[in-house]
Amino acid sequence: MKRVVVSLVAVATIAGILAAMASASGPAAGDAASIFVTEIPTGYRDWKLVSVAHEEGNLHSFAAVLGNDAAIEAYRGAKLPFPDGTIIAALHYRHLPSEENNRVFGRDQSFVPGPQTNVQFMVKDSTKYASTGGWGFGHFNPDGKPGDEAFMMTCFPCHEKAKANDLVFTRYAR
Amino acid sequence: MKRVVVSLVAVATIAGILAAMASASGPAAGDAASIFVTEIPTGYRDWKLVSVAHEEGNLHSFAAVLGNDAAIEAYRGAKLPFPDGTIIAALHYRHLPSEENNRVFGRDQSFVPGPQTNVQFMVKDSTKYASTGGWGFGHFNPDGKPGDEAFMMTCFPCHEKAKANDLVFTRYAR
Repeated sequence: MKRVVVSLVAVATIAGILAAMASASGPAAGDAASIFVTEIPTGYRDWKLVSVAHEEGNLHSFAAVLGNDAAIEAYRGAKLPFPDGTIIAALHYRHLPSEENNRVFGRDQSFVPGPQTNVQFMVKDSTKYASTGGWGFGHFNPDGKPGDEAFMMTCFPCHEKAKANDLVFTRYAR
Repeated sequence: MKRVVVSLVAVATIAGILAAMASASGPAAGDAASIFVTEIPTGYRDWKLVSVAHEEGNLHSFAAVLGNDAAIEAYRGAKLPFPDGTIIAALHYRHLPSEENNRVFGRDQSFVPGPQTNVQFMVKDSTKYASTGGWGFGHFNPDGKPGDEAFMMTCFPCHEKAKANDLVFTRYAR
């Protein structure tokens, strides 16, 4: 699996020069600096709520999804595609039982966010991120370090499956 | 059980006149208009995120907890007790599997908020709500109707168990 990724990167590096400006169907990995979000958008923790999310499987992940004003306006107006300038943030935590709450309730029923695991972003810029459906993907560990390129290459192919919703899985919680 | 509640209400109605101004250890049900939050605070859907919550048991509830500026400032500064003017909102939804997301992931792992079940508020006013630890409790169904008095009488005795945290269960998600 790792070898496949490395090969793709090698091929893409050569192809990147030609593909950089093209609206291709996949990310041009050689031009990584421009196809991934490399800086944490400022002030995201103050943004408005889009919704909440919970993933089991291997993730055990509990999330709050927030949006900047452009995102919230588009969500509330149910306007697709999202306009350039949209940023959606997913704040991920471990999904953990709350012993403290369960003591009060007298039974095991309560789950709360544990330590933060990462924060992810989708930034809409239909020019800059033309090769990945107009979206730049970002992933940052709690120490601020971005996800490595092999990991980041997995974002778009999965989000592409939500094409009917402009690549965005999370719906607005009314 | 219902008879017990009715009796409590009857006793409290008589006691209410005397108890209304007192800082008692329980709510004075006869003065219901002042001990519960009777109107939905405006603009709460735009407030900043405190955290997310998930309750199983009989609830199957998925929540986003938001706070007004006073709440967020107190949370971030880890200042207890919360100051007068604090409002904390809990937006509750059904905790439901997402068939749409599970199809993409190829297995059952994804949960999303279903229909809204209610929205609840804690409003800090140490004078107005002196008899319930300085907090007014509010519960509103999706149609905007408040919870009935018997139901509302259950808020304070449970929240009182979180005395070490000024009656607030939800911690700030950093």
